[in-house]
Amino acid sequence: MATLAPTVAVIGGGQLARMMAEPAAALGIPLRLLAEAEGVSAAQVVPDHAVGDYTDLDTLRRVTEGCAVVTFDHEHVPTDHLHALEATLPVRPGPDALVHAQDKAVMRARLAELDVPCPRNAVVASVADVEAFGLPCVLKTTRGGYDGKGVWFVGSPAEAEAVFATAAEQGRTLLAEERVDFRRELSALVARSPSGQVAVWPVVASTQRDGICHEVVAPAPDLDPELALQAQRAAMRIAGELDVTGVLAVELFETRDGRILVNELAMRPHNTGHWTQDGAVTSQFENHLRAVLDLPLGAPDARERWTVMVNILGGTRETGRLYDGFPHAMARDPRLRVHLYGKELRPGRKVGHVNAYGDDLEDCLERARHAAAWFAGDLGEESE
Amino acid sequence: MATLAPTVAVIGGGQLARMMAEPAAALGIPLRLLAEAEGVSAAQVVPDHAVGDYTDLDTLRRVTEGCAVVTFDHEHVPTDHLHALEATLPVRPGPDALVHAQDKAVMRARLAELDVPCPRNAVVASVADVEAFGLPCVLKTTRGGYDGKGVWFVGSPAEAEAVFATAAEQGRTLLAEERVDFRRELSALVARSPSGQVAVWPVVASTQRDGICHEVVAPAPDLDPELALQAQRAAMRIAGELDVTGVLAVELFETRDGRILVNELAMRPHNTGHWTQDGAVTSQFENHLRAVLDLPLGAPDARERWTVMVNILGGTRETGRLYDGFPHAMARDPRLRVHLYGKELRPGRKVGHVNAYGDDLEDCLERARHAAAWFAGDLGEESE
Repeated sequence: MATLAPTVAVIGGGQLARMMAEPAAALGIPLRLLAEAEGVSAAQVVPDHAVGDYTDLDTLRRVTEGCAVVTFDHEHVPTDHLHALEATLPVRPGPDALVHAQDKAVMRARLAELDVPCPRNAVVASVADVEAFGLPCVLKTTRGGYDGKGVWFVGSPAEAEAVFATAAEQGRTLLAEERVDFRRELSALVARSPSGQVAVWPVVASTQRDGICHEVVAPAPDLDPELALQAQRAAMRIAGELDVTGVLAVELFETRDGRILVNELAMRPHNTGHWTQDGAVTSQFENHLRAVLDLPLGAPDARERWTVMVNILGGTRETGRLYDGFPHAMARDPRLRVHLYGKELRPGRKVGHVNAYGDDLEDCLERARHAAAWFAGDLGEESE
Repeated sequence: MATLAPTVAVIGGGQLARMMAEPAAALGIPLRLLAEAEGVSAAQVVPDHAVGDYTDLDTLRRVTEGCAVVTFDHEHVPTDHLHALEATLPVRPGPDALVHAQDKAVMRARLAELDVPCPRNAVVASVADVEAFGLPCVLKTTRGGYDGKGVWFVGSPAEAEAVFATAAEQGRTLLAEERVDFRRELSALVARSPSGQVAVWPVVASTQRDGICHEVVAPAPDLDPELALQAQRAAMRIAGELDVTGVLAVELFETRDGRILVNELAMRPHNTGHWTQDGAVTSQFENHLRAVLDLPLGAPDARERWTVMVNILGGTRETGRLYDGFPHAMARDPRLRVHLYGKELRPGRKVGHVNAYGDDLEDCLERARHAAAWFAGDLGEESE
């Protein structure tokens, strides 16, 4: 059926690739997946998948052969391999863009050139460097961190020393950043096509728990329209200047004194955009596919006054199937939208999310929080 | 991953099974498919599929082994096989319900018992029977018809004679029905679970072209609320009395004198329910899965004032890919929702549909009709 439409290669078999499969099916676009193992999240729903190592160039070449474009479930494919692949097919986002999501030092340097406001930061090679930068501060590995991993809040030279020891073991470089006194975290999500079209979703507010995105409210409540516009402009500008193709998430701090500072960049569909599946005209997953194929983008407008997304994180309950949460969750809230990733519950693991939309924010929050807690086993007879 | 959730077996690899795969992925429910051939519509998006003959009981047994329930993309599985399968797993809808969608004579007899208003009808065995019934009339094969096949409008004994000759060749029984002077066709769609819960979508108006569903407007414009309620009540009553599980579509005539008459029944997601994918809180495909698993049903409410669905039917253009219609269709209408079935264009073949929703019915009609015509090749440089 390869003649019906171009095939999109997706590297990585996690939930982001899984959720791309839904709009791909609707649009009649075949996906070819490179999965880490048989049975992982996306491999359950993408027939045309191979199992292999994304750090192996030959594997990448084999999987992408005959595909129209290659895109990603994650940002961990080595930059050199991406450059090598570019000889045979479009890589979207391209390695020169993606490196800004892979390496925080490169990202900070580039954003400084662009005069995009960021927390004060410096690459540090020693505890003396950290003391010179100023304590307390945040230390981050420049590469390889995600979901709170590779980030430490340090208040003393001794704490910094311990982080250096860990980083040295892993061969990681460290970046020091000021601890920002933020009111809350925001996220500005855009999709950009190679032709230069950009679609910008409404700016959302996100809440982290243990460094993992926990809750998103779309749009961000009571956000100064001028700040919202600044955030959207920053995201569009970064996407354009870095030549990003596909979805770009710009995670931001809203400071207590009314400024926005860029925290992180992600170049793929992002947890802060999961609300778009049910709350926007076009989801981030569909627009990511449209963008990497250089098709016109779908409208990013919100369909509802409020949409709340809450992640389902494996909780205290170690056993039991998420499926067994359906009877209660679905009967209690017939308007709830549930997205599960085909993963087993494990403490702290993202295994799904719920979306609740409507006119009343408090109601949406209550519905989504209750359902997510129920699925995670944090409510009900078995909770502690 | 079979332990994460019960597996649903789906017999038939057409677009209805394909469109079940989207909510199945979202809900983390594994599907196991029996496809007619490798590469058919649903087999492109369901990894766990077998290729085989649905009229072979051994094949059906093999495919459904270990599944929690079996359901269908079409109504053509022999009734005896369904009874045999019931010994090993729940069959939903069950054979005693499904026979009413398979055999129009059985359906008419049962609806008469229930006092559900239908067109006047009689099984006819000869041209004399047809003359006694009254000409002009409609002749239908009691089994095996779909999309306008197996239906003839006859005005004379000679025309009836020709139909009997065709039916005899195919070993078909014929049903005569009065030609109803209808204002338009309506469809009442419900989902019903084995526990008896029912979800009823708004009643829609549908337009046929050459016997194939062409256009659906949800809700039916200017429908007398009392008639809408009658249609919904009839659908709920039929679903309950026939013990239907899953989606039931009741196709109706709205007569010029303000009555509704049942035309056809379908026990599966139905073309007149495709608007629910983008226009309702819960789509017919998701509620079909929830119903056959006896999970609580999702809200069937409309999310928008109007949703218009127009089918993409292979037109005059014989070559070219539907994919090549994307640049124009998507750029012209960023709010358009496109659903393709992974099929090649062939004259008269259903290969996809589009949904357009909004506050202005004329605008929705224009957008959906334009896009569907564009994809079919009926507009633009190559049109005749």
